[in-house]
Amino acid sequence: MKPYRAYLFDLDGTVYRGNKPIPEAVMALREMTERGAHIAFLTNNSSMTPEQVATKLRAMGVPADPEQVVTSSLVTAAALREEMPGASVYAIGEEGLLAALRSAGCRFDDERPDVVVVGIDRRLTYEKLAKAALAIQRGARFYATNPDRALPSEQGLLPGNGALLAALVTTTGVQPRVFGKPEPAFVHYALKRLGVPPQEALMVGDNGQTDIPAGARAGTDTLLVLTGVTRPEDVQALPVAPTYVAANVKEWWER
Amino acid sequence: MKPYRAYLFDLDGTVYRGNKPIPEAVMALREMTERGAHIAFLTNNSSMTPEQVATKLRAMGVPADPEQVVTSSLVTAAALREEMPGASVYAIGEEGLLAALRSAGCRFDDERPDVVVVGIDRRLTYEKLAKAALAIQRGARFYATNPDRALPSEQGLLPGNGALLAALVTTTGVQPRVFGKPEPAFVHYALKRLGVPPQEALMVGDNGQTDIPAGARAGTDTLLVLTGVTRPEDVQALPVAPTYVAANVKEWWER
Repeated sequence: MKPYRAYLFDLDGTVYRGNKPIPEAVMALREMTERGAHIAFLTNNSSMTPEQVATKLRAMGVPADPEQVVTSSLVTAAALREEMPGASVYAIGEEGLLAALRSAGCRFDDERPDVVVVGIDRRLTYEKLAKAALAIQRGARFYATNPDRALPSEQGLLPGNGALLAALVTTTGVQPRVFGKPEPAFVHYALKRLGVPPQEALMVGDNGQTDIPAGARAGTDTLLVLTGVTRPEDVQALPVAPTYVAANVKEWWER
Repeated sequence: MKPYRAYLFDLDGTVYRGNKPIPEAVMALREMTERGAHIAFLTNNSSMTPEQVATKLRAMGVPADPEQVVTSSLVTAAALREEMPGASVYAIGEEGLLAALRSAGCRFDDERPDVVVVGIDRRLTYEKLAKAALAIQRGARFYATNPDRALPSEQGLLPGNGALLAALVTTTGVQPRVFGKPEPAFVHYALKRLGVPPQEALMVGDNGQTDIPAGARAGTDTLLVLTGVTRPEDVQALPVAPTYVAANVKEWWER
């Protein structure tokens, strides 16, 4: 096993599944932390704040500070702060997105915002979709935290942010600018925070369609773990070949 | 002007725009009715009952009985009654759809329905989308009253049923069976009610993508009126050429 200075970890399917930790990942993360590796957690989930994510990880036995957590909401808000400081936004989303936009200095405006930002919102209503659609037609930019089509749950797949986006694209004919993985900007943002160049970092994730391309396009090595959505028989057909494939994080770590 | 035994009228964009009657259409419809023509109104709008539509038309001066009104909800419910009598359904929709399903003898079941039926619902919530998506994943058939992407309003385009469908297709990967125009079954249903064969009927509508193909595929002649969504410059590029094109219904009627 080649050691890296930094490890960028996807969360759902990699470190935990829903509310259940994946023990091999927890074990490896504890060892990596003890050895002084830089670790960041990168999640497309826009609904939670970094504080909430860190609390969840610590409850599972993973050493984690909020500063190590990068959500698609943070990356979206950071782009807004950089490109359109003080922009007014209409947001569909949960606490993680609203808090990130507030911290980035955005003003909220339902009627004539500069930007419509859409993340998963399990309190979605028709009225929210209508407001977003009308604002986009009035010329607001259309930003999306992440493109995930569905949220896995114990009962089955629930509508993901990609489903909300599809409704708005169908209504308006306008495509959103998307920030989450597989966009490499997400990985660059995390690396910049850690102060580590891409060639010294490993992106670790279970999703061959998002985690692996995001890392590869950002210039990191990549480790695909088979603890989540990618099945062994899918590996050959992935759009980007991972640097490593392993049953789980610990199996790779002990090589 | 060649007279027909039956006229099938689209509503929004043809007879009225939102809540405003189109005077030329109202005038022609009064004359057609006086001369004893068979008239039916065919709307993809699944939200209203035939009684509500007839009341709206009469308030605009158009002679109309509920029996003359065919909605996409009625056609969807009729197909269910014929193909799956007594089926259990989970429905997303407004009063027009719920009433049609009740009249067709459907039972309502949120959890394990035989069929998920989706029509426009301006009280849509995330929970409704989630229930529909889970039922489809458990094997329920996926039916849609109509594919309209957007609802025109004074403020702009609001999400139409096609937007709701896009969210569910994105989540589940399953395509719905769609009943509204441009499906010719809609026109056949109306003609059967009137007891008139297609070659003696004229389908009248403003939408070259839905009304005209629905009539043409059902075997009627077609009149495209330019009082709604189709602009004069769009006529050449339509998927199906209308039999007639006119500025409005009266202009054609007086030829």
